[in-house]
Amino acid sequence: MKISELSRRSGVPIGTIKYYLREGLLPPGTHTARNQAEYPESTLHRLRLTRALIAVGGLSIAATGNVLRAIDEPVTLFKSLGMAHCALPPPFPTEAHEDVEEEFNAEAHALVEAAGWTIVGNTPGIASLAAGQKALSRLGIKWTAKDLLPYAKLAHAAARLDLDQTAGIENRIDMAERAIVQTVLLEPILATLRRLAQEHEAARRYAPAGQAVDLEGSE
Amino acid sequence: MKISELSRRSGVPIGTIKYYLREGLLPPGTHTARNQAEYPESTLHRLRLTRALIAVGGLSIAATGNVLRAIDEPVTLFKSLGMAHCALPPPFPTEAHEDVEEEFNAEAHALVEAAGWTIVGNTPGIASLAAGQKALSRLGIKWTAKDLLPYAKLAHAAARLDLDQTAGIENRIDMAERAIVQTVLLEPILATLRRLAQEHEAARRYAPAGQAVDLEGSE
Repeated sequence: MKISELSRRSGVPIGTIKYYLREGLLPPGTHTARNQAEYPESTLHRLRLTRALIAVGGLSIAATGNVLRAIDEPVTLFKSLGMAHCALPPPFPTEAHEDVEEEFNAEAHALVEAAGWTIVGNTPGIASLAAGQKALSRLGIKWTAKDLLPYAKLAHAAARLDLDQTAGIENRIDMAERAIVQTVLLEPILATLRRLAQEHEAARRYAPAGQAVDLEGSE
Repeated sequence: MKISELSRRSGVPIGTIKYYLREGLLPPGTHTARNQAEYPESTLHRLRLTRALIAVGGLSIAATGNVLRAIDEPVTLFKSLGMAHCALPPPFPTEAHEDVEEEFNAEAHALVEAAGWTIVGNTPGIASLAAGQKALSRLGIKWTAKDLLPYAKLAHAAARLDLDQTAGIENRIDMAERAIVQTVLLEPILATLRRLAQEHEAARRYAPAGQAVDLEGSE
């Protein structure tokens, strides 16, 4: 298809598509005539994915390029997921990772061990966890591995659901793509669900008597 | 204490503290002499909270001001949490909330109902959920309320843990503050935990034979 059809079917403006092509986020088309190129159906698919990572996942152009390369690498899913996690911006701003004392790193490792997780390679997750624990500690919330373990167990249950979703996918690239889409796009969905559940729980526990809150059947 | 002590004990530069004072994020001190002001211990506490929301939570100055005002409102926890959620930036970029069709709003409401949640007031959560479902759908992942329900149940379990943490706090402002700190700062921690758990699960399920991955005792 031509670039105009790519644009029409994806809803992404032609100028933006040209920008993605220049940045190497999309494979170049086949030149059919002077200033004319033809793109296969797979480019439309890749364009939609690129758009979602940037506009919904909030990734930068550079991070998106790294994540797409991780998907295309001819490695196993667990390796490609690890590469994608390294390419993703960490959940905390860079500033939060500075000057994190060794005690918080030790707590992060203790939590991973208590959760029974085998973490291979240089995952950025441990440093993020340590940064988060330091931030809480500075506000007087000293959470040890033991305090965070119930949350780790819930996160593990979520990860099992994630991996179950990709289990039936035959093609390795499709599987890696699906796994990464789920990591990036489900993160804000899960955060939203937790906020909604907090509102429900807070209303259930603390709504003043007489306030018109229907709690029947909520538990 | 003087502003120099505030700076020393919080690690926040004096220039930044003056900026927060000008923006109304911190209450003004008591003037003791020309160009000299005295601040109570509570200002140090508020300064640490402000700093964490901005530097770790990634909130803007405006959003931080709104969240701090929600904490100070003389209302119940469930109301103050709702106000804070409205003040927080939504987990999705603004762009993702545009042109979301009614079918996705309906799915979002269906999910909240299936989860048994009573949501009062104009929470931004429903619109965020609809935006997320639309984004997944454009990538060919059509998840209905039924598919997302297992994730909603995990989010509910996390929210129960969150509210349990604040249950023993007597002072209403301390309780609201703690609830909001947990919402904002635990979000990236939970996202990090899920990524780590995904890496563990992917290694457990897909690590190639012969690769030196110790999985003993991981389950």
